[in-house]
Amino acid sequence: MTDNRSGIEKELLSYLPKKDELTGNLISSMEYSLMAGGKRVRPMLVTEFAKICGGSEEAAMPFACAIEMIHTYSLIHDDLPCMDNDDLRRGKPTNHKVYGEACALLAGSGLLTLAFEAASSEKAVSLNGTEKCLAAVSVLSQAAGAQGMLGGQIIDLESEGKKVTVDHLKTMDAKKTGALIIASAKLGCISAGATRAQTDAAVKYAENIGLAFQIIDDMLDITSSTEELGKPVGSDSENEKSTYAALLGLEECRRISTELTENAVKALEVFENDTSKLRDFAYYLLNREN
Amino acid sequence: MTDNRSGIEKELLSYLPKKDELTGNLISSMEYSLMAGGKRVRPMLVTEFAKICGGSEEAAMPFACAIEMIHTYSLIHDDLPCMDNDDLRRGKPTNHKVYGEACALLAGSGLLTLAFEAASSEKAVSLNGTEKCLAAVSVLSQAAGAQGMLGGQIIDLESEGKKVTVDHLKTMDAKKTGALIIASAKLGCISAGATRAQTDAAVKYAENIGLAFQIIDDMLDITSSTEELGKPVGSDSENEKSTYAALLGLEECRRISTELTENAVKALEVFENDTSKLRDFAYYLLNREN
Repeated sequence: MTDNRSGIEKELLSYLPKKDELTGNLISSMEYSLMAGGKRVRPMLVTEFAKICGGSEEAAMPFACAIEMIHTYSLIHDDLPCMDNDDLRRGKPTNHKVYGEACALLAGSGLLTLAFEAASSEKAVSLNGTEKCLAAVSVLSQAAGAQGMLGGQIIDLESEGKKVTVDHLKTMDAKKTGALIIASAKLGCISAGATRAQTDAAVKYAENIGLAFQIIDDMLDITSSTEELGKPVGSDSENEKSTYAALLGLEECRRISTELTENAVKALEVFENDTSKLRDFAYYLLNREN
Repeated sequence: MTDNRSGIEKELLSYLPKKDELTGNLISSMEYSLMAGGKRVRPMLVTEFAKICGGSEEAAMPFACAIEMIHTYSLIHDDLPCMDNDDLRRGKPTNHKVYGEACALLAGSGLLTLAFEAASSEKAVSLNGTEKCLAAVSVLSQAAGAQGMLGGQIIDLESEGKKVTVDHLKTMDAKKTGALIIASAKLGCISAGATRAQTDAAVKYAENIGLAFQIIDDMLDITSSTEELGKPVGSDSENEKSTYAALLGLEECRRISTELTENAVKALEVFENDTSKLRDFAYYLLNREN
């Protein structure tokens, strides 16, 4: 899965402003989290869907970077003391532990803002044209906003310590993590000028792996070790959060996430180009151990 | 100055998602700050520059709303405990005092994101076309980002308790408050399809009133009463911040802000349409008491 990871990371860095004496700490703080070893799941989805819809990885890259910036911002803010208050992320100290709360707050907002700079950049426009770039801005803002990811985060916050249903969890996750994953698939389709049928299939794939991803995350919180996971194990149950694993048990979670993965892979059938990477990716997510 | 304020507020509300049971608190929190009685300086600049450049207020409105959303987000985050830790804003409890820190954090990010939804909305596109909307996204993201407003905020944070020069303050303010004010002028020009000369003059006006605005803010922090100002007086000196007023004295501040206002008014000479509202506005800012 990692064959274009260094390409994504190189391009991510290219959008960061140069560090000057006065704002250097802010840029360093943004770079710290952007380069903290993420799996680059979302950028990969953007570029892969672009490619199987007849587009190019190069053209899709600015959008791939934009979605990864938004994902990274959400992690920085999520880790803040007033949110999950986490000290570790991917095995490293969280942004606010290194740069302080105020700088971490600004760095998160900086990455959210930079996503829209990337999607409207000269590079993005020269590779995709104005219309596709504006469509990307629209998809990004809706997925990241109050009806998307942020909506999922407020549901998450207000569910804390409450017993909730599986349907409630699904609604929350469809927004909290699903929205950005679906947006990734859509962005690839936008860059490639995909057909409606291709876009629908891409969204279906994304919806299914999105939910599977979250269910597996819950399971890993129980089954994995801190070293493997890169964050404290059991933090969900410590924070009194209802999880799929707690509500359904590990076995049922395994069954559902397998079914979702198979649905995702089935959705790939409409594409004429080689979809093996996206198929392998779905199974990789299912079988990952961190 | 208030003749189109209700129009702006109505349109601002139109971009907020409907409140549902699950995400209602987040939307309410966004609405609370968006409707907390701001002076709507930035939207006014957008629509006025659009009009004097031959555009329409209606077409400029989505961009006017976008810049006000970004301004409002910056206030919410600025008031948070890890930043300025303010309890009052415009005479009302700050967002986090009413909705809690976590919700206020999300509401701020929600408004930043909503700005890009507004600028890429169907309405914005039907009134301005794709190219102008993408140009607006570019201007908004650069002004709000690490080289603009957020850069100013990190400089502000790192200057706390330090003796700094007037030039340092100017650099900080050009980013912290100047960037959004200049962006407002540019957005009006973009919507109207202004000429290069018109845009340059608009930027010059905005640069001058932007700095004047900040110098006057410093002065009001010393000379005004809590009731007039709507926030605790003397909060700058309590937080050990270097200000123009502290460095230059009130008299010199008055002289400079008058000179800046006159420069701003002079920049309006290139426009053929009636610029009396922008001229009056510059003097209104100079003479305001809160």
